[in-house]
Amino acid sequence: MTRALTRDVVLTHPDGRPLADTDVTLSQVSHAFSFGSTGFELIDLANADDVEHSDPDAADRALAERWLAVFNTATLPFYWQQVEAEQGRPQTERLLTAARWFADRGVRVKGHPLAWHTLAPTWLQPMSADEVEAAVRARIRRDVPAFAGLIDTWDVINEVVIMPVFSNEAALEGDVGPNALSRYCRERGRIATVRMVFDEARAADPSATLLINDFNLGTAYECLIEGLLEAQIPIDAIGLQSHMHQGYWGEERVLDICDRFARYGLPLHWTETTLVSGDLMPPDIEDLNDYQPTSWPTTPEGEARQAEELERHYRSLTSHPAVEAITYWGLPDTGAWLGAPAGLLRPDGTPKPGYDTLERLIREEWWLAPTTARTDAAGQVTLTGWAGDYRVIAPDFETTVTVA
Amino acid sequence: MTRALTRDVVLTHPDGRPLADTDVTLSQVSHAFSFGSTGFELIDLANADDVEHSDPDAADRALAERWLAVFNTATLPFYWQQVEAEQGRPQTERLLTAARWFADRGVRVKGHPLAWHTLAPTWLQPMSADEVEAAVRARIRRDVPAFAGLIDTWDVINEVVIMPVFSNEAALEGDVGPNALSRYCRERGRIATVRMVFDEARAADPSATLLINDFNLGTAYECLIEGLLEAQIPIDAIGLQSHMHQGYWGEERVLDICDRFARYGLPLHWTETTLVSGDLMPPDIEDLNDYQPTSWPTTPEGEARQAEELERHYRSLTSHPAVEAITYWGLPDTGAWLGAPAGLLRPDGTPKPGYDTLERLIREEWWLAPTTARTDAAGQVTLTGWAGDYRVIAPDFETTVTVA
Repeated sequence: MTRALTRDVVLTHPDGRPLADTDVTLSQVSHAFSFGSTGFELIDLANADDVEHSDPDAADRALAERWLAVFNTATLPFYWQQVEAEQGRPQTERLLTAARWFADRGVRVKGHPLAWHTLAPTWLQPMSADEVEAAVRARIRRDVPAFAGLIDTWDVINEVVIMPVFSNEAALEGDVGPNALSRYCRERGRIATVRMVFDEARAADPSATLLINDFNLGTAYECLIEGLLEAQIPIDAIGLQSHMHQGYWGEERVLDICDRFARYGLPLHWTETTLVSGDLMPPDIEDLNDYQPTSWPTTPEGEARQAEELERHYRSLTSHPAVEAITYWGLPDTGAWLGAPAGLLRPDGTPKPGYDTLERLIREEWWLAPTTARTDAAGQVTLTGWAGDYRVIAPDFETTVTVA
Repeated sequence: MTRALTRDVVLTHPDGRPLADTDVTLSQVSHAFSFGSTGFELIDLANADDVEHSDPDAADRALAERWLAVFNTATLPFYWQQVEAEQGRPQTERLLTAARWFADRGVRVKGHPLAWHTLAPTWLQPMSADEVEAAVRARIRRDVPAFAGLIDTWDVINEVVIMPVFSNEAALEGDVGPNALSRYCRERGRIATVRMVFDEARAADPSATLLINDFNLGTAYECLIEGLLEAQIPIDAIGLQSHMHQGYWGEERVLDICDRFARYGLPLHWTETTLVSGDLMPPDIEDLNDYQPTSWPTTPEGEARQAEELERHYRSLTSHPAVEAITYWGLPDTGAWLGAPAGLLRPDGTPKPGYDTLERLIREEWWLAPTTARTDAAGQVTLTGWAGDYRVIAPDFETTVTVA
């Protein structure tokens, strides 16, 4: 399918008379589709911008320009261990400032994640199941309302499929046994765990879009979702990770995944998308975390491949009617997960071909540049473009039209 | 844990007086634990025995002796395509005869399976979802009551994890698209499918033990079970397949599986157990069906390995309190799934060492041979043995005691 819609729009003067037989300029203001990326890398800049007379890093400034030229949705990190390393002393100001910075620039903001066994705070570790539940609920009850109006979408819970069987990250935390959230999930069950966090998140922000999110895109995630829907848990969208460090999956597999998850009738968000522009991770690695070479450079051949695959991936995903969001997982190579050359900007900040590809697709091919059109005698003009907001400039006034 | 129980039993004369200070002989009659195997191979013999003056095959007769010397539970094949190749003309008489043959010999009988995408009848293929459901319900409503009193345990549904995403067996049926049960399961959902067949089976035999059964022993099966229990589907036991053609899994993995599935509070049945006594299947084969060499012989080294692994496997499984049944998937090599040397009898009918191992464990080490004991003044005697029935022979009478 093509996502371009054709809509007849009737324009009127501010006093209500039809704007008949007049040249107007139509131009797209925004996409309803979420073309996202992580906003992690701009938190420093946002906080520097928040201080008068500060002089933000020039590289950050350039990064921000690149970011805003392509994306319209930022995922901010709510990893609990980072947000609240010391119980009761949450460090939310920096995130609030970052969320405001994005919102001020017309960017939608998403929070990731409210509950996850990985990066759960160490102080959770000795707690009983009841205490863990109370802490998780309190965290959601505190953070979600604090960001209401700024963050409208949450990954409420991350990677539930493996949550109860997940072994602790011994390297990070020492041998402390299964982490507290895994223990809780194993004791209470996956469905009870998801119900608990969703009920709390829903109560904390009734209008938010609430996701489950997983890297498991197989039958296990299907079975989980079927159980959650049977239990009437109010999931708004299904999050699908796609870290393709071992190589692009190809249209057939990707569209098969879309079809399999679309049958639950919920929007699909491809939440964590990466394609590397260097050597591929060997195919025998099962847990991607197990492969972190000391050096993993971007290469010219890898960049060409990444650009081609990005185009195929974004074209196939946007062709599927159930897909409503794609988040690329990190614009710069600097700081990328696993040290992989998975960004769209090189370590020196220059754009890879894949950056240009996404900019061309999202802001040119799938975007209506200022276009002149003439209304008919009834003031009607035909607008063809993706769902989103469009600015209409008439000789004497301007207005905004939403295409949906 | 050891499964041997110690029970004080008070023996009385038929008139009610304590059987004081008397020597009695205690001997085990049966195991409550199900040590099963397939009964497929004895259907011909059972049907020949049912005919007067017939002369059953001597090899079958020998096979039957071997079978009955070890096992107490027979799984009979209810593959729908075989039972009812022509719609409305079920061939159940042969199975009824076989079930009676086993029951007459004190063997419990189990039916496998009532619903499965594989070996679903070809006439199901053109049906709509509603028609498929009606046919499945009718099949269950017909077959379960027909075997009531003979078959007390059913694999109600098989391999639901992959059911909705299962591609058809093109080699068997030609390219006819997804099979009808997979289509149904995909359209209605796994939980609705399981509910449908369990509701029908429960209504058809309220006292039967009803299982789900799967080869997926990972997170997908966990997620499915959690959804089914959340939906309050009346599952009596969890069936775990374990075709170990690629090598014995080892105690650690096996007990981890037991622990993971035991947390749902249901008995575990290891329903389809195999260990080969020849070359192992290469580890890169994902679907075991994809490896069927023209010749796959049993070898002396393989038989020694199989015997050792059988002992480890049966010891570890019986050590877990949630496990209530182990079914070995086929006593003879002849006719074994995939042509693998997975049986306990060689093609010439002689026992492999693994047969002797199971006989020794089940009928010697875990079995109380006739033992003399003396009652005290109150008629009490102490009996130590696995749960099951025990015969007590006193000087003037005999009785049976159940240890539970």
